[in-house]
Amino acid sequence: MPEQLGAAPAPVAKLIDAFHKLPGIGPKSAQRLTYHMLRIPPEEALALAQAIIELKEKTVLCSVCQNVTESDPCNICRDDARDRAVICVVEEPLDILAVERTRGFHGLYHVLHGVISPMDGVGPEDLKVNELLTRLRGGSVTEVIMATNPNLEGEATSMYISRLLTPMGIRVTRLARGLPMGSDLEYADEVTLSRALENRQDV
Amino acid sequence: MPEQLGAAPAPVAKLIDAFHKLPGIGPKSAQRLTYHMLRIPPEEALALAQAIIELKEKTVLCSVCQNVTESDPCNICRDDARDRAVICVVEEPLDILAVERTRGFHGLYHVLHGVISPMDGVGPEDLKVNELLTRLRGGSVTEVIMATNPNLEGEATSMYISRLLTPMGIRVTRLARGLPMGSDLEYADEVTLSRALENRQDV
Repeated sequence: MPEQLGAAPAPVAKLIDAFHKLPGIGPKSAQRLTYHMLRIPPEEALALAQAIIELKEKTVLCSVCQNVTESDPCNICRDDARDRAVICVVEEPLDILAVERTRGFHGLYHVLHGVISPMDGVGPEDLKVNELLTRLRGGSVTEVIMATNPNLEGEATSMYISRLLTPMGIRVTRLARGLPMGSDLEYADEVTLSRALENRQDV
Repeated sequence: MPEQLGAAPAPVAKLIDAFHKLPGIGPKSAQRLTYHMLRIPPEEALALAQAIIELKEKTVLCSVCQNVTESDPCNICRDDARDRAVICVVEEPLDILAVERTRGFHGLYHVLHGVISPMDGVGPEDLKVNELLTRLRGGSVTEVIMATNPNLEGEATSMYISRLLTPMGIRVTRLARGLPMGSDLEYADEVTLSRALENRQDV
């Protein structure tokens, strides 16, 4: 707790401190958020507190796909309309929301809950890789789409997992790299542009 | 709630929504914060929820200075070592922390809880102006320092209150305007620089 908060009442200092611990919230934002909580009606503030409590009390990880869910197995894993032969592997539960928004994928998911990152001491054993292998041993999955983030850790994780899956006779694909829609060639970074060139397609 | 959150479990969507309502938290930040809450241990998440609840349950406004406090009157108003002849008027409780940090002010405070802003429909009757006048009627206060923010609304509010106080024979002062310490003349905005010129001081 910054010492200059000595003049603030304990509950104020405590909440500033708690907000400050959140990612991307600096000391000034933490003060601003706390002051906002002071001003709003109690029921609005308590709604946020209640939402946090319910998030922890009412959600579990789906035992199949490891996504966050209220009921195990999750809605997607239980949905008979979905294609059980394709699994899209993502880093985080929020990535599923992003893919679902496209309305272009109708298979199942698998959440790794992180990426391999030796710098942060995260190895494959810290991820839900074994859970993925167990699912694939059933033999009904024909394709795994690696939808990790297009950065160093994401690519390395994707590479690691595809090496495990290829001997199992499963087709492993990954999301295309190229120019994002609505972007400007002039401002594209070199890596993106060279990937877009390499993977150029017939019109 | 953005419709694309349909795929998220209700407690997740609800918390994203609650975070999104906070000032300065966009939809992406709200998702990131919610996902962070999913990952951290329950006791850490509950600490934030508890801090919010306690902020609302354990704090009141000081009946004298209108600052946020655990006990009424607040520590500053109760402190016999402070100069009761000088009152520093601020917009928000957090401004008191800023002034206290200077360790250069030993008088009392008065929190207006806002500024006069016709655009937002905020008039003097929405601020703690009457409470200030009541305090001053005791006759023991000789100086009121207007420490509102140096912007349009702050200056207008300061002007409005000083017009009420001057006839009462109270000296009304305001914080000096000028170049901030550590700044660069080259990058100073015109208004700040012209104020600094007008209020130039003998070396």
